[in-house]
Amino acid sequence: MSGRITVVGIGPGSPDQTTPQASAAIAAATDLFGYGPYLDRLTLGSHQTRHASDNREELSRAGAALSAAAQGRQVAVVSGGDAGIFAMAAAVCEAIEYGPAEWRALELEVVPGVTAMLAVAARIGAPLGHDFCAISLSDNLKPWDVIENRLRAAGRAGFVIALYNPVSRARPWQLDKGFDILREVLPGETVVVFGRAAGRPDERMTTVPLADAAAGMADMATCVIVGSPETRIVERDGLPPIVYSPRSSGRPAR
Amino acid sequence: MSGRITVVGIGPGSPDQTTPQASAAIAAATDLFGYGPYLDRLTLGSHQTRHASDNREELSRAGAALSAAAQGRQVAVVSGGDAGIFAMAAAVCEAIEYGPAEWRALELEVVPGVTAMLAVAARIGAPLGHDFCAISLSDNLKPWDVIENRLRAAGRAGFVIALYNPVSRARPWQLDKGFDILREVLPGETVVVFGRAAGRPDERMTTVPLADAAAGMADMATCVIVGSPETRIVERDGLPPIVYSPRSSGRPAR
Repeated sequence: MSGRITVVGIGPGSPDQTTPQASAAIAAATDLFGYGPYLDRLTLGSHQTRHASDNREELSRAGAALSAAAQGRQVAVVSGGDAGIFAMAAAVCEAIEYGPAEWRALELEVVPGVTAMLAVAARIGAPLGHDFCAISLSDNLKPWDVIENRLRAAGRAGFVIALYNPVSRARPWQLDKGFDILREVLPGETVVVFGRAAGRPDERMTTVPLADAAAGMADMATCVIVGSPETRIVERDGLPPIVYSPRSSGRPAR
Repeated sequence: MSGRITVVGIGPGSPDQTTPQASAAIAAATDLFGYGPYLDRLTLGSHQTRHASDNREELSRAGAALSAAAQGRQVAVVSGGDAGIFAMAAAVCEAIEYGPAEWRALELEVVPGVTAMLAVAARIGAPLGHDFCAISLSDNLKPWDVIENRLRAAGRAGFVIALYNPVSRARPWQLDKGFDILREVLPGETVVVFGRAAGRPDERMTTVPLADAAAGMADMATCVIVGSPETRIVERDGLPPIVYSPRSSGRPAR
């Protein structure tokens, strides 16, 4: 027997940033699994079944989706942004590796999408225009000292840093601690962008120097981009400022 | 006076990975500027003018596009993948900062897209499922020792590493040197993915251990993804292997 499972990234929020490939994959599914707010963005037909779950139940959601696929359902697992960036594709792969043999026989398709940092960067200019990294600030699945080590290494080496999962009710102190660590290795005037809900009606872009960056400026819908020392702000009369990281680079940070 | 310039990421190659927002921006333009092979992917109308240039003329291309926009043309600057990742958005921002005042008065819109590493990752599983970085291996615009330093820092800190611009005729030795540096800080069995032309008819995905990785496996259309020591391969009977980086993480690399 065979079967198939598709993991779909529907983009950051605006329907015009969802690829045709993702829209087709959603339309072809009989059963859609995902975090409720992502499923809420979709317009589904009466033949389509919605399986919503909480955002901390990724592995059990992956297992339920794989079971349904193995039973012959047309299954789409839905992620916001890209399917493979701090999202469901890795959870589905992990479930396949450790699950029953029949899950390993399923065809797996991953449909990429515009991930949050790209949408935020586009709204403000080109802060990711040079070498950069992406770090999830959640210590649910890795020790906090690994995160600290990566923040220091990335700041010292001159990477622009995109922070995913910056805060949540269960993780209130991590972002401020992260800013403290970055202030040890980066100048206080380094540009920080708080990009909330890029492309959605409640979008909000805020730019502050690292010296003034604080966790209260972020929420669960925010992607934080911390520039390198070379990231620049271009002020403009009557227009929003442009933030960009030059294509050319000199030396790494102190 | 005003005016407007749009920098558009058209995705990695397959039209079904181009967002509706990008397609609309292309359709609305009277003048399209870009590297020839990217413009070749578009179907343009007879009212649309194509301004193709070589891939190492980014700043002069940006200037020509801004001049046309300041003259009231509807200008789109076209990038493959995402507009802001080692692409034209940063060049346009740089030209605005240092160019004539009228360029600063233009409205700037950047349209994000699916960047190469996301498309490659999707084809192979979820190798970017955990903290990762993106490094351009081109030393045209930054000193080689900055690149070496970033490779070492990223490998040691446990980041998955996506390498853009891995090789070209003018840069034949950099990728092998980069692999040598990574072999100093990462185990020889670390997974390396050579993802060529993801989503295009001539797509080719190759997975080898870092010990065997060599520059001859890449060309200009390749994005190389070097796993972390935690990145895994799941072998499957009669199906391609899955490569993924687990969502949870232990300790950084040696």
